[in-house]
Amino acid sequence: MKRVSLLGSTGSVGTQTLDVISRYPDKYEVVALAAGHNTQLLIEQAERFRPKLVSVATKELAMQVSAHLPAGTALLYGEEGLIETAAGNEADIVVTAIVGSQGLKPTLAAIEAGKHIGLANKETLVSGGHLVTEAAARKGVKLLPVDSEHSAIFQCLNGEPASAIRKIVLTASGGSFRDRTRDQLRGVSVQEALAHPNWSMGAKVTIDSATMVNKGLEVIEAHWLFGLPFDQIEVVIHQESIIHSFVEFVDRSVIAQMGMPDMRVPIQYALTYPERFVSPAASLDLTELGKLHFSKMDFERFPCLRMAYESGRAGGSTPAVFNAANEIAVSRFVAGEIEFLDIENTIESVLDLHTTIASPTLEQIGEADAWARQMAGDYGK
Amino acid sequence: MKRVSLLGSTGSVGTQTLDVISRYPDKYEVVALAAGHNTQLLIEQAERFRPKLVSVATKELAMQVSAHLPAGTALLYGEEGLIETAAGNEADIVVTAIVGSQGLKPTLAAIEAGKHIGLANKETLVSGGHLVTEAAARKGVKLLPVDSEHSAIFQCLNGEPASAIRKIVLTASGGSFRDRTRDQLRGVSVQEALAHPNWSMGAKVTIDSATMVNKGLEVIEAHWLFGLPFDQIEVVIHQESIIHSFVEFVDRSVIAQMGMPDMRVPIQYALTYPERFVSPAASLDLTELGKLHFSKMDFERFPCLRMAYESGRAGGSTPAVFNAANEIAVSRFVAGEIEFLDIENTIESVLDLHTTIASPTLEQIGEADAWARQMAGDYGK
Repeated sequence: MKRVSLLGSTGSVGTQTLDVISRYPDKYEVVALAAGHNTQLLIEQAERFRPKLVSVATKELAMQVSAHLPAGTALLYGEEGLIETAAGNEADIVVTAIVGSQGLKPTLAAIEAGKHIGLANKETLVSGGHLVTEAAARKGVKLLPVDSEHSAIFQCLNGEPASAIRKIVLTASGGSFRDRTRDQLRGVSVQEALAHPNWSMGAKVTIDSATMVNKGLEVIEAHWLFGLPFDQIEVVIHQESIIHSFVEFVDRSVIAQMGMPDMRVPIQYALTYPERFVSPAASLDLTELGKLHFSKMDFERFPCLRMAYESGRAGGSTPAVFNAANEIAVSRFVAGEIEFLDIENTIESVLDLHTTIASPTLEQIGEADAWARQMAGDYGK
Repeated sequence: MKRVSLLGSTGSVGTQTLDVISRYPDKYEVVALAAGHNTQLLIEQAERFRPKLVSVATKELAMQVSAHLPAGTALLYGEEGLIETAAGNEADIVVTAIVGSQGLKPTLAAIEAGKHIGLANKETLVSGGHLVTEAAARKGVKLLPVDSEHSAIFQCLNGEPASAIRKIVLTASGGSFRDRTRDQLRGVSVQEALAHPNWSMGAKVTIDSATMVNKGLEVIEAHWLFGLPFDQIEVVIHQESIIHSFVEFVDRSVIAQMGMPDMRVPIQYALTYPERFVSPAASLDLTELGKLHFSKMDFERFPCLRMAYESGRAGGSTPAVFNAANEIAVSRFVAGEIEFLDIENTIESVLDLHTTIASPTLEQIGEADAWARQMAGDYGK
């Protein structure tokens, strides 16, 4: 019986994680759940999975929830609640399915508590890659990627050493606006940006796919997860999202991981690794699809990906700033405050003002993050 | 230093094996070479690689060769020569790059002598799969596939247990006549059949690609090599030969091995396994290709593949008969004795006359093989 703690249980990856777990009740036990604001769903999840602990975003939300929890389920809130959900219980593996840089602290706490990580929060490695990988190595903790691209690379490597890798290639669908020119991006609506062609994901990730920030964060994450320099990490456009990513080895042999786009597959693999269990996902039939398409990434069309590479290469505090500026820019776009193309303008202007701190502490990362949020919030005002 | 013996050194896989070895002179030593009739090339190879033993097909050929060998290179011929090349020396690995069912006996001898096998002779497992896999398991010998499809599956599995496999899928380019209907196959010339669109291979294998016999032999080989029932082995048409084959696991995750069509990659992997060395093969650029195509296998269009599955399922002596009948039919087609479509007619008529022997001995396999050759030679007379 594997004990699982889940940060972000009411989001897209969170609910799919519980879907996977519910199929193997004799193999997995949910010991703690942390949610944000969706208290209704959290209460249902607590009823169903009977965790020992749940946590919500604020004290007010906790007061709404408290009367509706089953007996034996403790309740916390805020950052303390997140950290207790991550580290303060008997979980063997913590799935970090919360969105944003708030994922870093609880993930580090879970690693220090010796828990394996099902890593779905990309900002953890983007903002604090040097701290997280150092801690994981020191504690002998596995970082098991949940993101489809990193799970793909992880599965393709399957124990092959980094020295055997010539390069890894992350595939990008191109997002909601892949067939538009830059001129056609002016004035696009939030609704248009939220219509991802292949994957069912949360709003933030869907917007990030349209700007290619999402792929940029994945490039930085891959750098830390697989210990590769940025020159060995490429991105190609593959509109069908069938090949989830691939590895070219030094002998020019390429290993690719494929499948129908269904997050339950990488989520499940992070939970079952190194085993594989039967999954409810649909079987891939390439003859049904007929064709797979590939095209070169265009860094002029997608400047956010260029900025992500530049931030990754600058290192230190810069990726955290890139990420924080984007988070604010996306929320301002969704709120109707700025245009779609202002997302990249915001990031660029904040990066221009930032001076990289080479090996930032957790506190310095937090400060850089807060500074970037403030600058991004002021953009265009 | 790994010591290599090579059966079939002057053929397509043989010369490419020596090309691979010549790039790593500090890692590999050629200790024995067996060739058929190309004595000129064998003499050059002996001069260059200085093996302790060479062997040719007949006594007459041996007499032609003997004066031209370097000092310290012994000379043998015929079946005895093949078996000594396979088993009678200090080789660590024997690459079986000879074509046809003559590969079975020396391969079994090499296994009994405890040598790992770089398996390029498909007929070994087709005709004697039960004997070969039993002997390899008993002697703790590795069967390292050289064929691009089986190397692909081997690389995709990379240690995953058979219980994790849902199915394996071998890709088929479709061969020289893939765009022709059955009616358009009447009266095709030998020259047309020898023009394979993707791979540079020997004549026998190229004709076998056009009839899909080659894929049929690979299906039977895969059955033995990976211990899978025929229901778990599929074939799809993939005209570019970029995805060399793939595995679907029970969790619906698919792992594929890809690359530019270059036999030196799988040959090298069989030699370097579990390591990977830098290869001279071209790097795969999917964006350069733009598209990959897939379509369903049509068993009406390619009846030889249907017969291969039927032979494999019948088991025992039947796959040996399928293979032997095909060998004779192909040589008769190349000699202009029969039409292209008579290859399948020959196989069908010989299979119809055969009564399966369930667990044949090596001798019984030899008898079934000889009987099938005679029947196939008489077809249409």
